[in-house]
Amino acid sequence: MITLTTDFGLRDPYVAEMKGVILTINPKAQIIDNSHGVEKYNTRVGAFMLASILPYFPKGTVHVAVIDPQVGTKRRAILIETIQGFFVGPDNGVLMLAAKSQVIQHVYEIVNPKLMLTNISNTFQGRDIFAPAAAHLTLGIKPEDFGPEVFDPMTPEFVQVDQREVAVLGEILDVDDFGNVVTNIQTKEVCQTQRLSVKFNNINLELELAKTYAHAKFKEPLALIGSNGFLELAINQGSFSEKYHISPGDKVQVIVI
Amino acid sequence: MITLTTDFGLRDPYVAEMKGVILTINPKAQIIDNSHGVEKYNTRVGAFMLASILPYFPKGTVHVAVIDPQVGTKRRAILIETIQGFFVGPDNGVLMLAAKSQVIQHVYEIVNPKLMLTNISNTFQGRDIFAPAAAHLTLGIKPEDFGPEVFDPMTPEFVQVDQREVAVLGEILDVDDFGNVVTNIQTKEVCQTQRLSVKFNNINLELELAKTYAHAKFKEPLALIGSNGFLELAINQGSFSEKYHISPGDKVQVIVI
Amino acid sequence: MITLTTDFGLRDPYVAEMKGVILTINPKAQIIDNSHGVEKYNTRVGAFMLASILPYFPKGTVHVAVIDPQVGTKRRAILIETIQGFFVGPDNGVLMLAAKSQVIQHVYEIVNPKLMLTNISNTFQGRDIFAPAAAHLTLGIKPEDFGPEVFDPMTPEFVQVDQREVAVLGEILDVDDFGNVVTNIQTKEVCQTQRLSVKFNNINLELELAKTYAHAKFKEPLALIGSNGFLELAINQGSFSEKYHISPGDKVQVIVI
Repeated sequence: MITLTTDFGLRDPYVAEMKGVILTINPKAQIIDNSHGVEKYNTRVGAFMLASILPYFPKGTVHVAVIDPQVGTKRRAILIETIQGFFVGPDNGVLMLAAKSQVIQHVYEIVNPKLMLTNISNTFQGRDIFAPAAAHLTLGIKPEDFGPEVFDPMTPEFVQVDQREVAVLGEILDVDDFGNVVTNIQTKEVCQTQRLSVKFNNINLELELAKTYAHAKFKEPLALIGSNGFLELAINQGSFSEKYHISPGDKVQVIVI
Repeated sequence: MITLTTDFGLRDPYVAEMKGVILTINPKAQIIDNSHGVEKYNTRVGAFMLASILPYFPKGTVHVAVIDPQVGTKRRAILIETIQGFFVGPDNGVLMLAAKSQVIQHVYEIVNPKLMLTNISNTFQGRDIFAPAAAHLTLGIKPEDFGPEVFDPMTPEFVQVDQREVAVLGEILDVDDFGNVVTNIQTKEVCQTQRLSVKFNNINLELELAKTYAHAKFKEPLALIGSNGFLELAINQGSFSEKYHISPGDKVQVIVI
Repeated sequence: MITLTTDFGLRDPYVAEMKGVILTINPKAQIIDNSHGVEKYNTRVGAFMLASILPYFPKGTVHVAVIDPQVGTKRRAILIETIQGFFVGPDNGVLMLAAKSQVIQHVYEIVNPKLMLTNISNTFQGRDIFAPAAAHLTLGIKPEDFGPEVFDPMTPEFVQVDQREVAVLGEILDVDDFGNVVTNIQTKEVCQTQRLSVKFNNINLELELAKTYAHAKFKEPLALIGSNGFLELAINQGSFSEKYHISPGDKVQVIVI
């Protein structure tokens, strides 16, 4: 099974080209679209999207993520082997939030031309390098056959929150299509409470840590542990992001009260 | 075979999470996306989307619809068995337009924790309850194993039109991506005519009941029986909805002339 | 294997209806979405989308394209057999850019009612005629069983560029979701150079023919041979189309300097 996470959008033929390449190499591959609506060039949002789906896919799944503003430059193409499966994509951090949440065993650079398309474009390695790599992995090709081991994969800063004595300092990973705002603060850092003081962009809110959206009044803000285990800021049947002008990358401070 | 109809959009990882859950339980399940672009929280539009695809899917198909503004509250999760197949979703009416168009045999509440994910979030029952239920149904689990029978499923008002002596009173179910406006008035109520008087929102139009869009002049309005058997108001290569400011839920009166 | 290219969008149930029809006829068919985001009624963009994916699909693939503003009129439904596979859609040119890039063997009109749905709507031949035709082709039905041979399929003008002594005159086929502008000028017409003079809509640009987007400075324009072999105008991490107000159908003149 192969999942795809990209910033290609669904209008263009790029996703279909990747699928054609995969199915030409392995006609029995099962391909699941995660998201192709990651904001263009935003590796942080792509990293979050990828991390979100992991718990729901079986062992051995190959996850491909292509948010790749440096395509065609010297940035490496990599393949990460964990105890649960494989991650394939550019070495720009987009794979690391997900891969680190499992146990990373090895990272390899993808350089073996026999496991790529014959003609490699400079602009679309998703199709020419990453799709063939994923397809070959599902056929049982060994990770070490793709290239040399890599010991310094690029690791993004947003993987870790800063847990201080009274406050947790984190940041916004994603704003979903409902306008719900997802932080990188996890259950363990805010459990055991019913109310939170949340501070961001010079705004201070006291929010109930609710069990679900509908537990707040209509159009009222709330905090909750989202379905992926991250602390989420939301408005019941409204958009928290629009109301408070908050976006991925913004810093957030949370105090349990 | 399983179909999915939601208001999740395609940007977020939610649909992929549901698919991961389904394929983990039944790796041979075939999953077809109906729409994930239902206007958020709009069970009426979701009901229409679901009803539209029924005639084109084989007997035994499991249809899942998750438009669920009350997720996590006391609204029930239900499973409807008809003579054609199964419907899985919240008990808020979204399943009933489709299910009633077939013969409903039984409705069950989904409460058996063995047929759900182990950890049930309060915010995403599509993934935690409905996706596993659909997957288990495709494996042959009996409907009655999911929970007790339900005799009062919530039934929406828009299922039925009001047929009077000279006029039919109905309402708008959907506006499609082309701007075509779909009513809940069906073929049998307007056949045998060539022109209609249509009244809505203080607007009166006399429209030809055309065979296809291109039979009206370029940018001119027309009525036709849409491909799903419902009366549709349209503009040839234009948007009826934008021109006449009409939306799902608006009332419409039709007189055969 | 069957690919689908349409202007239906992903909000509406139309794509799912086509898939239901296909899988009812051939439950083992593998269906790949190319794009359903072609601008409505724009056969030129649809033709480009279809041509783009061809090199990445195996021999025997059935490609269906439904951009069909004249649906329900006397325009023919056709099936094209090439040495690589099959194309199914309306006879309005949308299939020809792709089919001509392979060797066309025969074109047939689809008229055999046994290979269509029983009830044919006037508005949705994608579901009622083209989807069943594609499904039957994957079951091995012979192309000549669909109807009489056609010797004058409608052929669009944008297939050919005008190569003059110092300049190539072409036009814009597509603007992708990144704002990259794709012309119908191909590799062979501009190779052997490093800089191009590009003229369109009274704008003159001298552009480097770069290897990839990131070789231009941030937000600077460049030309490159896109991943599909067509000359492309782009801005590194920006939208060429928005900056220079250029759209599909606009004429472009290119001089190698």
